[in-house]
Amino acid sequence: MRVPENLLSLIQEENFFFISTHINPDGDALGSSLALSLALESLGKETVLYNRDRVPEFYRFLPAWEKFTASLPGNRQPLILLDCNEPGRAGLDDAVIAYSAIIDHHETVRDFGDIRWIEPHAAATGIMVYYLIKELGLKITQSIATNLYTAIAVDTGTFRYSNTNSELLRVCAELIDSGAAPASIAVALYETWTERRFRLLIEVLNTLEIVDNIAFTSATKELFTGTGTTAEDTEHFSNFPRMMQDIEVSAFFREIDGAWKVSLRSKGGVDVAKIAERFNGGGHRNASGYKIKADITVAKEELIKAIQEAGRMKMTSLRESA
Amino acid sequence: MRVPENLLSLIQEENFFFISTHINPDGDALGSSLALSLALESLGKETVLYNRDRVPEFYRFLPAWEKFTASLPGNRQPLILLDCNEPGRAGLDDAVIAYSAIIDHHETVRDFGDIRWIEPHAAATGIMVYYLIKELGLKITQSIATNLYTAIAVDTGTFRYSNTNSELLRVCAELIDSGAAPASIAVALYETWTERRFRLLIEVLNTLEIVDNIAFTSATKELFTGTGTTAEDTEHFSNFPRMMQDIEVSAFFREIDGAWKVSLRSKGGVDVAKIAERFNGGGHRNASGYKIKADITVAKEELIKAIQEAGRMKMTSLRESA
Repeated sequence: MRVPENLLSLIQEENFFFISTHINPDGDALGSSLALSLALESLGKETVLYNRDRVPEFYRFLPAWEKFTASLPGNRQPLILLDCNEPGRAGLDDAVIAYSAIIDHHETVRDFGDIRWIEPHAAATGIMVYYLIKELGLKITQSIATNLYTAIAVDTGTFRYSNTNSELLRVCAELIDSGAAPASIAVALYETWTERRFRLLIEVLNTLEIVDNIAFTSATKELFTGTGTTAEDTEHFSNFPRMMQDIEVSAFFREIDGAWKVSLRSKGGVDVAKIAERFNGGGHRNASGYKIKADITVAKEELIKAIQEAGRMKMTSLRESA
Repeated sequence: MRVPENLLSLIQEENFFFISTHINPDGDALGSSLALSLALESLGKETVLYNRDRVPEFYRFLPAWEKFTASLPGNRQPLILLDCNEPGRAGLDDAVIAYSAIIDHHETVRDFGDIRWIEPHAAATGIMVYYLIKELGLKITQSIATNLYTAIAVDTGTFRYSNTNSELLRVCAELIDSGAAPASIAVALYETWTERRFRLLIEVLNTLEIVDNIAFTSATKELFTGTGTTAEDTEHFSNFPRMMQDIEVSAFFREIDGAWKVSLRSKGGVDVAKIAERFNGGGHRNASGYKIKADITVAKEELIKAIQEAGRMKMTSLRESA
């Protein structure tokens, strides 16, 4: 992975940076932004870390998470946008942006950014920030290591997804040597659910319906109210039905503001980014989402139809290829 | 980690080996034994791979798993015992053993073995076999890599447990370069549940009761019958309630042959090996089990009492230490 020269120059030359990432931030968005902010400060720069949304409770173990603010800075420092590639995704439609640099591993939506560093094959934006920090010759402190390790862990399912490779494990080995604690991070990510959230999961799993190798689960507004939870509590829920060998797509419907927010997860046989696009959503091949305003029965039928029309790739498992 | 000279000499000098591992074999037992057998064969040696129990369906993706036999070999080749350190654990009480070598990462139970290579700090026996193969100068083939990667993945919860370290990630990076496919292995380990098993999990989660930071779940005989499942399908079930931050112990009750088989899982604050011992069971500090013939309400009350009497250690999390 090659860090663009003009990005390195920008960082060397400027002294104030406005760092932002996408709304509803996940571990990669938060961890890569925090690591970059901490690294730039170690270089004597000042940074403002902006997110329209608050840092989810869930991620408040990340060192320096309190640096995030929801107030837009007034002055005109250059924007570094991470883990997304257009200002709309960061809630920055109305912001005045004098100059901007993108660091992202998602496919480009549109041609925004004066400096565009996009690596669709990178497993996480966190790994790009790792290379940037190395290229700048900066020390990976324990706080930076924990943020980067978390960013990579979240986007690879702690080394379970198909974007896992040997380079990534070597980088994470170095992050451990720099102070990242893999087991504590795993506990923080996977074992700090509230009882309410766990009870919500059980209720959501109780809605399981399987049609044509697609697993449907849902959470209505009433369910959130009844369990004292919010949509924020449903992160990762769509992954559970993937545990079943015959499931090709998991579709999780959440009722938010009178519409359904649908999360799709695929094991690779169905390109769910393409499916989501048909409903004006987006995402990756194996994880995507969209919004739909319709009766849930109708919405499910439309999704089944879309998946059937898109076709499926035959997956070969280790078992079959052995 | 240093491979003992006498183990290397034994392997160089002998031509036939009897390889065995513990009964109810898990991924580390199977993967490390298979890798060793394949490596020795690449060196022109012959091996017999013995296990009293059959290879669980679950692990039949491991390359060369069919090599395991339940018939004891008649001749007197040296025994190499992996992932356990006394013949009883391998169902070999009655076997005639002329000479033996142990390769294991568990604490010693008794002083068995002419050559004893025991590394209680190794995360998995698989990583010891990796160093042995390297020391012998043998090629890590794709089949060996897949077996070793699986062995390490299972014993570290794919890099989530506290035995995860940077050395381990570097070894696994090399195994990936030698052909291990991390995502396919993760799918084989975690995403091959039958629908019946998943529906059983949902029913078990529906029984959740929480008393004094202990999570209770259960599966009655009727539930197994109703969902068309057996007790074998409940592997890992006791881990799910650990996801809740306030849970210190997860206790899962399964009705088998008119008694309750209880699985205990702890996050470290309660030594559940000691709790299980009080009910004539056993296990490790964080995972143990016992059998009890009693009304379930009574059995739960006795367990609560035992945990309260044993006392709890205060756990520090990343959140608190940050």
